[in-house]
Amino acid sequence: MTDYRRLRVALLGAGAVGSQVAALLRKHADELADRAGAALDLVGIAVRNPDAPRDADLPRELFTTDSEQLIVGADIVIELMGGIEPARTDILLALSSGADVVTANKALLATHGPEIFDAADQVGASVYYEAAAAGAIPIIRPLRDSLAGDRVQRIMGIVNGTTNYILDRMDSEGSGFDEVLADAQKLGYAEADPTADIEGYDAAQKAAILASLAFHTAVPLDAVHREGITRIDKQAMDAAHHAGYVIKLLAVCERLADAEADSPTGEAISVRVYPALVPREHPLASVHGANNAVFVQAEAAGNLMFYGAGAGGVQTASAVLGDVVSAARRHIAGGVGVGESTRANLPVLPIGRVTTRYQITLEVSDEPGVLATVAGILSEGRVSIATVEQTIEPTAPTEVEDAPGVARLVIGTHTAREQDLSDTVDRLAASGVVGRVVSVLRVEGN
Amino acid sequence: MTDYRRLRVALLGAGAVGSQVAALLRKHADELADRAGAALDLVGIAVRNPDAPRDADLPRELFTTDSEQLIVGADIVIELMGGIEPARTDILLALSSGADVVTANKALLATHGPEIFDAADQVGASVYYEAAAAGAIPIIRPLRDSLAGDRVQRIMGIVNGTTNYILDRMDSEGSGFDEVLADAQKLGYAEADPTADIEGYDAAQKAAILASLAFHTAVPLDAVHREGITRIDKQAMDAAHHAGYVIKLLAVCERLADAEADSPTGEAISVRVYPALVPREHPLASVHGANNAVFVQAEAAGNLMFYGAGAGGVQTASAVLGDVVSAARRHIAGGVGVGESTRANLPVLPIGRVTTRYQITLEVSDEPGVLATVAGILSEGRVSIATVEQTIEPTAPTEVEDAPGVARLVIGTHTAREQDLSDTVDRLAASGVVGRVVSVLRVEGN
Repeated sequence: MTDYRRLRVALLGAGAVGSQVAALLRKHADELADRAGAALDLVGIAVRNPDAPRDADLPRELFTTDSEQLIVGADIVIELMGGIEPARTDILLALSSGADVVTANKALLATHGPEIFDAADQVGASVYYEAAAAGAIPIIRPLRDSLAGDRVQRIMGIVNGTTNYILDRMDSEGSGFDEVLADAQKLGYAEADPTADIEGYDAAQKAAILASLAFHTAVPLDAVHREGITRIDKQAMDAAHHAGYVIKLLAVCERLADAEADSPTGEAISVRVYPALVPREHPLASVHGANNAVFVQAEAAGNLMFYGAGAGGVQTASAVLGDVVSAARRHIAGGVGVGESTRANLPVLPIGRVTTRYQITLEVSDEPGVLATVAGILSEGRVSIATVEQTIEPTAPTEVEDAPGVARLVIGTHTAREQDLSDTVDRLAASGVVGRVVSVLRVEGN
Repeated sequence: MTDYRRLRVALLGAGAVGSQVAALLRKHADELADRAGAALDLVGIAVRNPDAPRDADLPRELFTTDSEQLIVGADIVIELMGGIEPARTDILLALSSGADVVTANKALLATHGPEIFDAADQVGASVYYEAAAAGAIPIIRPLRDSLAGDRVQRIMGIVNGTTNYILDRMDSEGSGFDEVLADAQKLGYAEADPTADIEGYDAAQKAAILASLAFHTAVPLDAVHREGITRIDKQAMDAAHHAGYVIKLLAVCERLADAEADSPTGEAISVRVYPALVPREHPLASVHGANNAVFVQAEAAGNLMFYGAGAGGVQTASAVLGDVVSAARRHIAGGVGVGESTRANLPVLPIGRVTTRYQITLEVSDEPGVLATVAGILSEGRVSIATVEQTIEPTAPTEVEDAPGVARLVIGTHTAREQDLSDTVDRLAASGVVGRVVSVLRVEGN
């Protein structure tokens, strides 16, 4: 074996991903050295309890509770603890000690990204985070580098495997949300506390990271509009199916022209996570199970899609190790790290100023004139109707004989402004002719 | 605008891609400077005829015929002339003058890659070639960097838009090859001389580049087995359809265990381009029109797919400009370029030692005992039968009354070694019971 320069690699955390990273670093040591041009010596693994059982068979002497000592002697620090602290403090210590950092910590990057990237810039180090956005799918380098000469117009990402698994099973089996969630928990696709996934928090963190890269703008997590999938029931699924759509939890990152936007070019961006109707013929509609996919529309490159497994210990370890090899190559090559590009600094629009298409489902009394009233309210609210379908609700309760039955109106709109749409739906609800607003869903992907 | 360091960018060639690159460099100059951290000054465009009409509106004074003078004064040289010479000489001059090089020249990299990468290594420069493998689809950085910590097992790529367009139309419309080719030429999807596309030369160059990256091995173009699509007729399409397959021209790059392989681990690789049967449910089967896609199977990451437009002036320009930004960032960051990783140096197996599944279609006399004879020959040849379907050929000529009719046998095999298969097919053809070997197609993707 070639006599390579040796680099000291420190690992923080030994959970599902960390154990795999440690095991693969050791198993493929020779191959990784050939590719990196440097031997990657795993010098220690900082954990809370060195004696806890691990997924991989790792020598006891690698484990330590003294993360500080481990970090200051390292060339490359891999942070896989998750959470904000002590991850943030450890990463800042690593950077100030001259190490490059590899992390899969989306929560930390989405909330403290600018602080961490600034710290790296100040010492000329690099932060690598391929595993933080879409598991094993290489999306960071394509956005950061390959598309750096293009203008990304829109990203639509299925970036949370748990919710895609749930929605896909609801769609294919006609099962209800609670039933599928319980099953997903049993099978290990969903956590005991599924909030981070099903309420869209995980997807929102990834959306902030993707939008920051795509639009060269530091997007704070609290600028990401977020809705989860808990209100998606069997009825909504059936209605989507009937109309030629599938429901997906999408992270949408979009470049928009906005007359009121506070930017020199009148350009702004929107970053939002919500369940949306996607046409069945759209490539994102065929992303099944716990898989992820990121659909990118760019001015010159056109439509691109990146597809693969989302989370998973060994899959995420692949992305982490790719970053470790990159960090090692940079260490050998010399020079300073290339910082994040955030100079476009576009304003992030509130959800009210975003425009998209909608599908509104209403329960109305089955009487003459109701449709005219509804259409009038929409028109006054600057919401233009594209399609209307009326169905008599077969299970409608008619307690009084001769009382009007209940009909269901499914209204597809042309592109409307979210604030107009939302005000209009409020007026519909208060109009007297609408018994219930069954659902309001955005339509994305055409 | 920030006062950036200025980098001198020289462009060689102003065809479909070059014109777009020049136009976008000028149109988005401020944005690109913000992203690169350096102003990218297009200082000149070397062409044979400065007065020829161009796709984009570019100032006459940018054009020059003196490529040498342009190159030696540049920080970044973009080579978009294509062909071997003078591209090779110009790129070597650029590297020896200290410039980084961006190229989309797959023919050159597939034949003179090692010479060019060595020249770059010697001066610490970098060669970027995202546009050389799959048009605008970011695949170089994912393979080179993101998957550098993983082990790629297999790549199956639809990397030629022209042939995918032709095969897709044959499949969806039931049209014949010649008819669709003529139409593709009229519509600009195929060249007047379509040889490079339909005979697989273009795909073979891309396969050599992808395999070199994926397996950290310099793969010479003449080690790539290549077959084109000209023998795919309507009958083959119909038969594929009937059996649940679609025919795609695939670039297959595969890691194999081979007992006789001359490598320390017994590992070898195979790189081959041919029309193959792909199951209709495989993600590659839904790649329509002139689009490209690269399906990657890696040990840890699992299955990934990268999808997008193949060739096209503006799409390819996106990939080129991404490389220009990367080259500029590296220039600013300092340090030497990261060279190609080829230390695995795996042997490339000849096609005879590759194993795959096959579908063999034979015309045989419709007599008792024929199937037994065919099965016997296959078994002797170490080709194991998975499925057999027999159909009487309805259009068979029966000149003599009472002469046996002609039947058609479609045989699906288990995995067999190509040499065994090929020898067996020769024996079948000479056996006396087989009237004609209609087709032999490999099955990939399951």
